[in-house]
This record gives sequence, structure tokens and C-alpha cells, in this order.
Amino acid sequence: MKKATTIRARFVETDQMGVVHHSNYVIWCEAARVEWMRDQNLSYRELENDGISLAVSEFHITYRQAVLFDDAVDVFMEVTEFRSRRMAFAYEIRHSDGRLAAVATSVHIPTDTDGKAVRLPAKWFELFSQLSND
Amino acid sequence: MKKATTIRARFVETDQMGVVHHSNYVIWCEAARVEWMRDQNLSYRELENDGISLAVSEFHITYRQAVLFDDAVDVFMEVTEFRSRRMAFAYEIRHSDGRLAAVATSVHIPTDTDGKAVRLPAKWFELFSQLSND
Amino acid sequence: MKKATTIRARFVETDQMGVVHHSNYVIWCEAARVEWMRDQNLSYRELENDGISLAVSEFHITYRQAVLFDDAVDVFMEVTEFRSRRMAFAYEIRHSDGRLAAVATSVHIPTDTDGKAVRLPAKWFELFSQLSND
Amino acid sequence: MKKATTIRARFVETDQMGVVHHSNYVIWCEAARVEWMRDQNLSYRELENDGISLAVSEFHITYRQAVLFDDAVDVFMEVTEFRSRRMAFAYEIRHSDGRLAAVATSVHIPTDTDGKAVRLPAKWFELFSQLSND
Repeated sequence: MKKATTIRARFVETDQMGVVHHSNYVIWCEAARVEWMRDQNLSYRELENDGISLAVSEFHITYRQAVLFDDAVDVFMEVTEFRSRRMAFAYEIRHSDGRLAAVATSVHIPTDTDGKAVRLPAKWFELFSQLSND
Repeated sequence: MKKATTIRARFVETDQMGVVHHSNYVIWCEAARVEWMRDQNLSYRELENDGISLAVSEFHITYRQAVLFDDAVDVFMEVTEFRSRRMAFAYEIRHSDGRLAAVATSVHIPTDTDGKAVRLPAKWFELFSQLSND
Repeated sequence: MKKATTIRARFVETDQMGVVHHSNYVIWCEAARVEWMRDQNLSYRELENDGISLAVSEFHITYRQAVLFDDAVDVFMEVTEFRSRRMAFAYEIRHSDGRLAAVATSVHIPTDTDGKAVRLPAKWFELFSQLSND
Repeated sequence: MKKATTIRARFVETDQMGVVHHSNYVIWCEAARVEWMRDQNLSYRELENDGISLAVSEFHITYRQAVLFDDAVDVFMEVTEFRSRRMAFAYEIRHSDGRLAAVATSVHIPTDTDGKAVRLPAKWFELFSQLSND
């Protein structure tokens, strides 16, 4: 897996249990996808501007060690499946000392601006196919 | 002021201080606007579908009594200013026993789908002008 | 499955794809758990006040049909596993016409206020064991 | 004003108007407070661990230029009032080219873990009094 980004847990992301609420990890994985692409010269913003979204069709997450306010966690990720009509990613969210906070997977379907499933345009298919997990 | 809606504080809306995080009240006022309009047969969704948004240009809030998880608060509101290029609302968020949780005001600018400030279309101007504070 | 609650999609829950962002469904399932318990005279708030949380240890969701701003969706749920140290629930999020918006499952571990896994106290174990899926 | 932090707008923070939803700016100001303190060797986390919170009692914001997905905005801030029972801050959120996205102010009351207003402990009063706006 490649390190995609480091995220600092915001105060608003905590809940009354005193830890980061589980819903925020879903958002952190999304932020990681954007940074992981940027790091390889691929812009999710441009993809969106081209009228293509990578709609999330499935998400699975297992929580391991709670994340506290102000913790800085690293999100690692890799492509686990890549086709013109379906992509999948795996994630590890780790504390700065390496302890696993969570592991997750997501499946995505390229869609047009009407939300209709489409084949990833050739230009983007090629760009995505050059993404590396290393 | 007219009661717009009752909102149950969600667990995710709490923070590690054990109360609802202050950012959520901004969202509750938005939800109140939508319900307050619906209650008077005006659909914010249709306004959006007509290509008009009521962009928030200003928001002010004073917090009084904390709201806890699972509390049901009532949001009261009224129009305080109504022109074709500018609207303002006032809000009171109250605990079920009447205690004030917060008071707020918002100012809105009608915009088109490009985010450009526009005059509220005649049809909508008329509909809005019939909204009542009572 | 039993209907737990009806949720109106908030404007803030949409994203620039024009649909409800996928992270909000996680929150809706949480809100459904609270209402489903309340409907059967069990208070999640009292459970928390007794120092017990039902920490989410796993969440899985498959998205089917997008939810739009202002849509009212029904969340149905049921207990799929119930032990003193582990509970699991299944969810169906449905549009008002019955179409599936998403299906999800969650696994929970009772924890104390330090976040340590504990056995559900006898009083609560008994209360939970009376919850019905019908 | 001193630059507190740079924030990258997350996809989840957009709404169907295609811009960042106004509620997120409130959260960005909070994140800025934490980073601005950290930058001056003050830890908001330690303050919380000492049982003191800076509860928000008032927030005012004026929106200027919309922020789009993936924009990196800079948050500048300064102390505008500092007493043992009340603090106030001013913020400017700027696009990377310097254009103003929003200006805001917040007022805070030190509270204990029960949410009761308290005098800021001497140790923290001294630390805060050394914070600089330059």
C-alpha cells in the first residue's frame, strides 16, 4: 500500500464517547483517494469537471483502535480492482506509531452527471491504469 | 415566530464535551427553513429545480443552553427582511420546555446555478411574499 | 424487518454530484438504531448514561438508488446477532415508493466509558433480548 | 492576523449547489484555532485534558466568494478579546490568491467538564496571554 495522506482528527469529528465518530472514517477514505490521485498527477477535480464521478457503490470498514481528537492518522491505500466500469480500493488507517485504526474497502462505479453508470472515458482509463500501488 | 420543525439531536452531532457541537445548529436552521416553507406549501426543492438557490451570505448565532444527545428541540423562525435580491430570517431554537438553546439570524441572496446573484423570479417572489410569520 | 424511522434528506447532506453523500447513510443507520430502540421502550440515551456504549466495530453498506435532497426515506432494521459482548444489525434504506436506496449491516461491541470492551450489564442484556424484529 | 492553517475543501463538504456548504466554514475556524494554538506551542488537546473547554457562545460569519471542491484556503486569525472568562477571535478565510472567501468572529467561554462557565485556570491564562497576533 502507498501512503495517501495524513489527517488530523478535528474536534467536530469526536462524539460524546470521547473518540472520533465512526462515520468520519468514510470521509477520510474519500480524502485519501483524492490525495493519492493527486500524488500521482491525477486530479479528481478534473475528472469531475469532465462530467465523470466515481460513485461509491459499496463500502466496508472494520474498526480496530479508536482515534482521538487531534490524533494524526495516516491513510494508506491501493487499487484492488480496475475495470472501465468498476474500480475498488483498499485502505488502512494507521496511528502515527503504526497501530491500525481501521481497515476498509470501497467499490466505485463511474457515472455521468445524471448519475448513470458509464464506461470510464479512454483518456481517464489510461490515466488510471498507470496508477501504482507501490 | 412560527414553529418550523422539531429536530432530534443525533449521536453523531455530539462532541467530546458531551453536548451537540455548535456547527450543527447552522444545519438545523437550514432544515427549519425547508420545513417552514413546506408548511406553507412552498417547496425549496422546486426552487432549486427552477435553478434558484438561496445562498447564505451571512449567519449569526448566539448559544444559550447546551443541547444534549437525543434532546428534541423546536426551531421557530420568521422572515425579517424580504426583497427580490435579499432575504433575512430570524430563528429561535428552544428546548421542549421552552428554554432557549440558541438564537440566530441568516441573510440570503438568490443565485442562479452559476452562483451569480439574481433577482428572485416573479413567480417565486410572489410565493415568498405570501409567507407568514404568524 | 421493522420500520425504525423516516428520515428527510437535508440539503447539507447533498454533494456536488447532486445526491446525498454516501457518508450520511452511516449516520442514518445510527439514527435508526436509536428510534428503533425508543419504539420498543429502550433508551439509547439511558444506556449511555449507564456508562455503556455500543461501539461500532464493523459497518458494511451497498448503495442501490441515489437519495436526493428532500427525499423522505424509511429505514428498516432487525437484530441479526445478539450476545452479551457482540450485537449485529441489518438495515434497509428505502425510498417512499419502496425502492431500495441501500442495504447495510453493523456490528457493535458494548464498551465502558474508557472504551474498553465489556459484557452488556444484565439489566440491559435482558432489555435487549426482548427487542423484536417484527 | 496570523496564518493559522491551510485547509483543502473535501468532496463531502460540497453541496448540490456545487460549492462548499456554508456550515463547513464554522468547522474550519475551529480547526484553525487548534492549529494557531499549536503553532505557538499551546495544545488545545491538553486544555481539554485539563478539564477545560472553550465553549462557543457566539459565532458570526459573512460569506464573500464561494469555495469549490479541492480548493486550498488559508485561514488567518487573531485574538480580539482576552479575559479569564471570555475570549474572542476574528478570522479571514482566503483563497490561495488572496481573495476573501469569508470573514468571521467567535466568542468563547471557558467551561469545566460539566459545561459550567469557569475562570480560565492561572496556568492557561498565562499561556494564552502570551499568544501573539503577529
